[in-house]
Amino acid sequence: MADLLSTKPYKGTRDFYPPEMRSREWMFSVMSKTAESYGFERYDAPLLEPIDIYLAKTSEEIVKQQIYAFTDRGERRVAIRPEMTPTVARLVAARAKETPRPIRWYSIPNLWRYEQPGKGRLREHWQLNCDIFGAQNEFLADAEILQLAVSLLRSYGADSRHFRLFLSHRELLNAVFAKLLNLPNEKFAPVARIMDKKAKISVDEYRALLHAEGLDDRAVAVLDSFLQDGITFLDKNSHLAGAQYILSMIKFCRELGLADYIEYDPSVVRGFDYYTGLVFEVFDRHPNNRRSLFGGGRYDNLTSAFIKEKINAVGFGMGDVTLEDFLRVHGLYKEFPRKTEIYVALFDEEDIRLAALKLAGELRSYGFSVETALSSGKLGKQFEEAGKKEIPLVLVLGSDELAAGQVQVKDMRTGEQTRLPLNHLADKLRQLVAEKTNIPE
Amino acid sequence: MADLLSTKPYKGTRDFYPPEMRSREWMFSVMSKTAESYGFERYDAPLLEPIDIYLAKTSEEIVKQQIYAFTDRGERRVAIRPEMTPTVARLVAARAKETPRPIRWYSIPNLWRYEQPGKGRLREHWQLNCDIFGAQNEFLADAEILQLAVSLLRSYGADSRHFRLFLSHRELLNAVFAKLLNLPNEKFAPVARIMDKKAKISVDEYRALLHAEGLDDRAVAVLDSFLQDGITFLDKNSHLAGAQYILSMIKFCRELGLADYIEYDPSVVRGFDYYTGLVFEVFDRHPNNRRSLFGGGRYDNLTSAFIKEKINAVGFGMGDVTLEDFLRVHGLYKEFPRKTEIYVALFDEEDIRLAALKLAGELRSYGFSVETALSSGKLGKQFEEAGKKEIPLVLVLGSDELAAGQVQVKDMRTGEQTRLPLNHLADKLRQLVAEKTNIPE
Repeated sequence: MADLLSTKPYKGTRDFYPPEMRSREWMFSVMSKTAESYGFERYDAPLLEPIDIYLAKTSEEIVKQQIYAFTDRGERRVAIRPEMTPTVARLVAARAKETPRPIRWYSIPNLWRYEQPGKGRLREHWQLNCDIFGAQNEFLADAEILQLAVSLLRSYGADSRHFRLFLSHRELLNAVFAKLLNLPNEKFAPVARIMDKKAKISVDEYRALLHAEGLDDRAVAVLDSFLQDGITFLDKNSHLAGAQYILSMIKFCRELGLADYIEYDPSVVRGFDYYTGLVFEVFDRHPNNRRSLFGGGRYDNLTSAFIKEKINAVGFGMGDVTLEDFLRVHGLYKEFPRKTEIYVALFDEEDIRLAALKLAGELRSYGFSVETALSSGKLGKQFEEAGKKEIPLVLVLGSDELAAGQVQVKDMRTGEQTRLPLNHLADKLRQLVAEKTNIPE
Repeated sequence: MADLLSTKPYKGTRDFYPPEMRSREWMFSVMSKTAESYGFERYDAPLLEPIDIYLAKTSEEIVKQQIYAFTDRGERRVAIRPEMTPTVARLVAARAKETPRPIRWYSIPNLWRYEQPGKGRLREHWQLNCDIFGAQNEFLADAEILQLAVSLLRSYGADSRHFRLFLSHRELLNAVFAKLLNLPNEKFAPVARIMDKKAKISVDEYRALLHAEGLDDRAVAVLDSFLQDGITFLDKNSHLAGAQYILSMIKFCRELGLADYIEYDPSVVRGFDYYTGLVFEVFDRHPNNRRSLFGGGRYDNLTSAFIKEKINAVGFGMGDVTLEDFLRVHGLYKEFPRKTEIYVALFDEEDIRLAALKLAGELRSYGFSVETALSSGKLGKQFEEAGKKEIPLVLVLGSDELAAGQVQVKDMRTGEQTRLPLNHLADKLRQLVAEKTNIPE
């Protein structure tokens, strides 16, 4: 006999049993409802894409080390999508002419990356993607995306105690390098890397590294001010690319009532190479979960990989794994009971059994979720099964009841048993089912 | 400059733009509601599985010619799931002890097969999978699966004019071969293949082929009777394995009120090697679409690939591509308008614009789906955009309206314009939105 196969899911992925699935459906439906309240429409696309669409703009780390790519039986080089943005750019490009703008689209695809699994990082995750394409006023589109990002987490019951959105502008750092420090282009990347390390090394070391790249004390002081003085630095240097944009956006968000949620942070950069303007990242504020939840930004050049027209775009992607961690750590994660409301017991006598099965069918047509016993004899066993499955009501239709035109109803939450007439049964059962929510756990 | 990339989806797959996505969501929600009305609970699992789980029981054609398999970066041999049954068997096996039985589970996964794309056949399709595991009374479980299969299509508005379910039993054909024809085992497959070809060849050719396999005239007559006489043949040969089962099931379905929907057909076999009892197939009755829509059956041995316990199982898988063709050919396919109900126009003056954006936010909190203009100036252009997007109501909040505590509402379906007070606006708008359904198209 062959060895038994493992029952575990593929490394770094999850099985969704019904209890987890109910929570996942809740998470997804909150995403849909919130996005749709802003007029976003849902789309979807195939799981596999030609690998070419990732080569241009997706981050090098993903394409070289994390993408699931292979050659199909027709010698096509394909990839399981590691992100949705190139796909949505392809879809928009394909119908660029006939789709009225601005285009507001969302999707909740599963994405695959070959990562070392860890907290908040799995090989398969689902991700809400919201994007606005072709807005005439890009500033307003950016503001709407920020507002939607905040609304989303608020829809789960989170507020400014739980999270904060930090934004910046892609051109700002380069402008600081070029205009204030007069750095040559080739120094941008090494200096950015040193700045990234700042929190992890000593002040002396930090300064020494910058000096080694040719920065004098004045330049180091400018960088310090850029990183520490926030809005004040921008006020003083509002001629820099991106500075005026950030000042206006922060003011606009404040006027929209988002002052508690949105701040400027010069250290926000985002990994993808395709961002061209606004970049933002949403952080968990919980002491045990201080990390980036999700982010996004403006990427104006993606459609031009497919068509000549550049269509401006802004959006974000929010993953379900980090979202679930966030909701759990703040006590906002929800679990739901089974949906089955009624269990119909069955007797062995064929005519009585048929009457019970027909009753079950009738109750389904009234909108109830009804299970019937798939066993014979022993009523006790059937009650036991309904109890294990936490089904609130059990219906018994025996020969006595059938003769009297009645059905026996046992409320499994209270143990109470009553007889109800078969006429107008649905109304009475609806009341009994509704009482469910009034019973303390 | 690099060549432009194709905007087409990968061969044999579909992009789902918002209009198609709305129909897909409707199709899926009918699946969910119907399955849940029978107490089925939804599950999901990763897209990739170790290829081993398909090698044992999935049909050879799929594994050898159609599966999308590759080696991951950790040297694991994996496959994109071509079907869901081995996966659900894995999930059931993993929690065999703690899950109360019978287990009724459903899922709507996307599946991949490398096929030559054609009518009803694509490389990526979604499939509703419904399965019952561990029923004490397997006959009742089989009957419920048949009933659910019929209920599903009826939930889309189809009835016995549109489709028919044909059932048989896996053991019956073998019993005919072994008990009535005394055929040796190695002749089963070649004779079955000749029977399969019967409709496509002449009677003489058919007989000659059977004779060549050693069947005499009496044997050919028995086979003819088996294929043509339906229930009468079973009545005469009720000692054959499967015969009594089929007679009882047909009678039971009739008593459940399914006589118009369910018939016995000896030619139903099903491709998968894992079926052990009931097999069935649902056929479209439309003259332009006479073909199998979906099918299923009993497969009792699948969990034993993972654990020692054999858990009895019965189920089916219904694909979205064939379902959509079926619904279209019978005029049952539905299309839905965009969900956005309100378009809020925007002026350039910052304080007025902010008031309009806040109004939009407030209406969203009342449950409306609200788009705001992402453009400046020109009210005419904004009306035009709302018209193209078929949004029924446009709200204009200018300085006059703001001063008067009012908002201008234009009903885009009638052209009617009214002014409404900002107080209690939501109630009035709800009425206006509801009127939508009363306007003939």
